[in-house]
Amino acid sequence: MVTCTLFAALATLSPMPSADPVLAMRDRGLTDLYAFDLLRELTSGGSRLSGSEGAAKAVAWGEATMRRMGFENVRLVPCTVPHWVRGDRESATIVGGDSLSVAALGGSDGTPAGGITAEVIEVGSLAEAAKLGERAKGKIVFFNGPFDAKQTSTFAMYGGAVGQRVNGASTVSPFGAVAVLVRSMTLAVDDEPHTGAMRYAADAPRIPAAALSLIAANRLSKAVKTGSTRVRLELSCENLPDAPSASVVGELRGSQWPQEVIVMGGHLDSWDLGVGAHDDGAGIVQSLDALRLIKEVAGRPKRTVRVVLFMNEENGGRGADAYAFGVKMSGEKHVAGIESDSGGFMPRAFNTSLKAGQDAKLRSWLPSFASLGIERFTLGGGGGADVAPLGPLGAALFGLTPDNQRYFDYHHSRNDTLDKVNPRELQMGAIALATLAWKISEEGL
Amino acid sequence: MVTCTLFAALATLSPMPSADPVLAMRDRGLTDLYAFDLLRELTSGGSRLSGSEGAAKAVAWGEATMRRMGFENVRLVPCTVPHWVRGDRESATIVGGDSLSVAALGGSDGTPAGGITAEVIEVGSLAEAAKLGERAKGKIVFFNGPFDAKQTSTFAMYGGAVGQRVNGASTVSPFGAVAVLVRSMTLAVDDEPHTGAMRYAADAPRIPAAALSLIAANRLSKAVKTGSTRVRLELSCENLPDAPSASVVGELRGSQWPQEVIVMGGHLDSWDLGVGAHDDGAGIVQSLDALRLIKEVAGRPKRTVRVVLFMNEENGGRGADAYAFGVKMSGEKHVAGIESDSGGFMPRAFNTSLKAGQDAKLRSWLPSFASLGIERFTLGGGGGADVAPLGPLGAALFGLTPDNQRYFDYHHSRNDTLDKVNPRELQMGAIALATLAWKISEEGL
Repeated sequence: MVTCTLFAALATLSPMPSADPVLAMRDRGLTDLYAFDLLRELTSGGSRLSGSEGAAKAVAWGEATMRRMGFENVRLVPCTVPHWVRGDRESATIVGGDSLSVAALGGSDGTPAGGITAEVIEVGSLAEAAKLGERAKGKIVFFNGPFDAKQTSTFAMYGGAVGQRVNGASTVSPFGAVAVLVRSMTLAVDDEPHTGAMRYAADAPRIPAAALSLIAANRLSKAVKTGSTRVRLELSCENLPDAPSASVVGELRGSQWPQEVIVMGGHLDSWDLGVGAHDDGAGIVQSLDALRLIKEVAGRPKRTVRVVLFMNEENGGRGADAYAFGVKMSGEKHVAGIESDSGGFMPRAFNTSLKAGQDAKLRSWLPSFASLGIERFTLGGGGGADVAPLGPLGAALFGLTPDNQRYFDYHHSRNDTLDKVNPRELQMGAIALATLAWKISEEGL
Repeated sequence: MVTCTLFAALATLSPMPSADPVLAMRDRGLTDLYAFDLLRELTSGGSRLSGSEGAAKAVAWGEATMRRMGFENVRLVPCTVPHWVRGDRESATIVGGDSLSVAALGGSDGTPAGGITAEVIEVGSLAEAAKLGERAKGKIVFFNGPFDAKQTSTFAMYGGAVGQRVNGASTVSPFGAVAVLVRSMTLAVDDEPHTGAMRYAADAPRIPAAALSLIAANRLSKAVKTGSTRVRLELSCENLPDAPSASVVGELRGSQWPQEVIVMGGHLDSWDLGVGAHDDGAGIVQSLDALRLIKEVAGRPKRTVRVVLFMNEENGGRGADAYAFGVKMSGEKHVAGIESDSGGFMPRAFNTSLKAGQDAKLRSWLPSFASLGIERFTLGGGGGADVAPLGPLGAALFGLTPDNQRYFDYHHSRNDTLDKVNPRELQMGAIALATLAWKISEEGL
C-alpha cells in the first residue's frame, strides 16, 4: 500500500520526520548522554600513546564501536607512527635534598643507567636560553618560564610557553648542556608533571628532557636561587623503531551528493599519563556520538558525513597526514573538516578557516547553536591539527572551541581522567558537532 | 612642592593612574587569584546555616575580613532568622529492604521518635499530587518528578521541578498524607541527597519532608512499581525560635557622589550539607575581591561601592529584607544592585532588570567584558533574590550568570565543597563584578 511504503521510506530516511531534526538531535543527546558512555568505554582501556598496546586496543575499539553503531564503510587507514616508551624508571633528585616529581618528555632519549648528575642553571624563556652560550656547558638547563596568568585564554598562555618544552633541549645542547628540565605547561600548582612532545633538531646533540611538576619547579627554583644546586636525573625512556598503526574511519553515505564529504574527528592517541579523557577522548566520543545522532534522529544526510579517529596527533600527526594523502590521491572532494581537540568542556564557539564574506550561512545558523553555548564562528581559525591538511585540499575547517580555563590543569598529566569530564558539557559539544555537520550536509557552505 | 603633592594625590586616588583601570584590575585579579584564597578561608569554617554557630562565625569572619581589607564603614545590619536544625538522626528504610540516602528538607518538622512507617505512593509532579485525594491518606507521598534533561539551562530544569520540594508537603497533607519524600533537585545520579527549603502552608497540617538521593529515588521507584512498599522514615530535625543574626556591610565611599550607592553581594548563609562553596561562598568572595580590586587597583570610585554579605537567603531572605528596609527608611539612593548567586563557574552574561532602550551604556561596555567570558546583558532579568528588594527602591538590578551545567550537581548537597571550584573561573566572576561596579560608578547608567 502506498501509505505503508511512504511510512517505511520515511522511517528509513528520517525516524522523526515531523520534528526539526536539529532540535530532535539535541533532545536525544541531552536525554541519553551517550557520549559519556562511550568515553567511559574508551578510557577504561587506559592510555593510548602511539605505538602502545593501549593505542592498538583503541583502534580495535573504534572499529568495533563504529560497526556496532551501524556506520557505513568502516575501515582503517594505516599509518606508521613514532614509538616512544617511557620505561619504568624516571627520577630527579636535588643532590643532598628533595626528590622532584618528573616525567620524561615524549620523544626524549633516556639518560645512561645511573642517570646524569650536574649543576642546574635556570632560565625564564627560550630566548634567555639561546644566550647562555658557554654558561650552559656541562649543566642541566632548567626552563622555568611560567604561563602568563594575565592572559584570559589558557591556550594563549600555552602558546607563549610551550617552545621551552618543544625546542628547549636543542637550543642548549649545542652549548654543551647535558639535559633539560622544563616547568610543566600548566597553571595547576600541584605535584603532577605534564608531559608532551619535544623535538630534536637534526643538527644538535640529543640530550634528555623532562617536565617538572609546578611544586617541583618552584622547589628547584628556590634551591637554585639559594646557591649551587646539583640534580641527579635518570630517565629510562627510549625511541624504538616506528610502529604500524591506523586511524579509524566510518560514515553515513550522502543521499544526494555522496561524493561530497564532511569529516568530523579528533585524535585517538593520548599521552601515556592519565587516560586522555579530555585530550582527546572527548573529541573522539563527540564525533562518534554526533554521527549517531544524525543517523538515529535526523536521518540520512544529503552529503556524506564521516568520522575519522585520527592516530598520532600528539607526537607526529602521521594519521592526519596519511588520511589527507589518501584524499589527495583519490581526489575525493572534502567540503569541511570539523575537529574537536580542546577538551570536553562547555562549548563557546567554533573557529573556522572561512573568512569575512564567506560566513553568511554560518551566521544564519547561529540560532541553532545558541542553546548549546555557541555564540559565534570565529573567522580565520585553523580547525585543528588533524583536519588542517584538508584545508589545502579544499575543505573549510572548523574547530570546536569550548571553555578552556580548566584544560591545562589536566592536559598531558595523570589528572586527565574521566572524573574531570562533565557528561552534559561533553554532550553539548557532541550535539554541536552533529548540528554543524548536518547544516553543512543539508545546506552546503 | 607641587609635583610631589600631585603624585601623592594620584597615589591615594588611583595607585596605577597610567593604566586602564579595567585592564589593570583584570591583570591583578588573574595574577593573584585572591577570591579563591578568601573562599578557602570562608569554607574552612564549615557550613553556615542561618542561626547556626557556623553562620555566626561567618558573620565575624566577614566583618574582620572587610576591616583587614581596608573597607570603609564596616558594620553589621541585624536581622532575625529562622533557626532550623537537622539534629543527629535521619534515616529512611524500605521495610524489609534497602536503606535510602535521605536528608530532611530545611524547615521540615521531625518525625516522632521511632519514625513514621507507612506505604509509599509515587507521583511525578505537584499537579499529579494535587489530584491524589483520599489515595494519599496515611501514605508517604513520594515526589519523583525528575529534572527535564532536555532543557539546556539547568536553572530552567530546577524551576520546573522545585515546586515538589517547596510545596509538596502542604499539597498532600490535607489529604491525610503522613510524610513526603522528594527526589533531589539534581541530574547527578549519585547517593547524595540535596536539601533545600520547604514551606508549610498556614492552613495545612505539618508533615515531615525529606529529599532522597537519585540512587535512592530510583531504587524506591523500582520497589513501588514492583508492589506495595512501606518505608520507615525518621527525622530529628526541628524548628527552634527565631535567632538573631546579621548581614555584613562595607564600602568605599564615592569621591564625587558618595550618596549614590552601588551594592555588590551574595549570601553568607549556606545549607548545612557541604560548605556552600558555590552556593554562595563564591558570590561572597567575588564581591569582597571585586571591592579589593577597585580599592587597590582602580582607586576611589566616584560613587559609593558597597559590598553586602546577605544573611539568610536560603530559608527566609531576612537579611535582604532588613537591608532594604534600612535603605527605605534612610532614603539612601541605590543606583544598582549586583548579585552573584549562581555558582563560581565561568561567566557568560549578566542578567539585568533594565529593559530595551535603557541598555545603551551596557552595550557600549561589552568590549570590557568579552575576555571575561561575558557575552551580553540579558534584559528583563531580576538580578537575584538578595538585591531584588532594591528594585522597587530605584536600583537597576544585575545578576552574574555563569555557566550552569555543573551547578546542580553540587547545589545543597555534601558535594558543594572547595575542590569543585576552579580558582580562575571564580576569579573571572570577581573581575566581572569589579568591572561592572566600576563602570556604573564612573559613568552612571
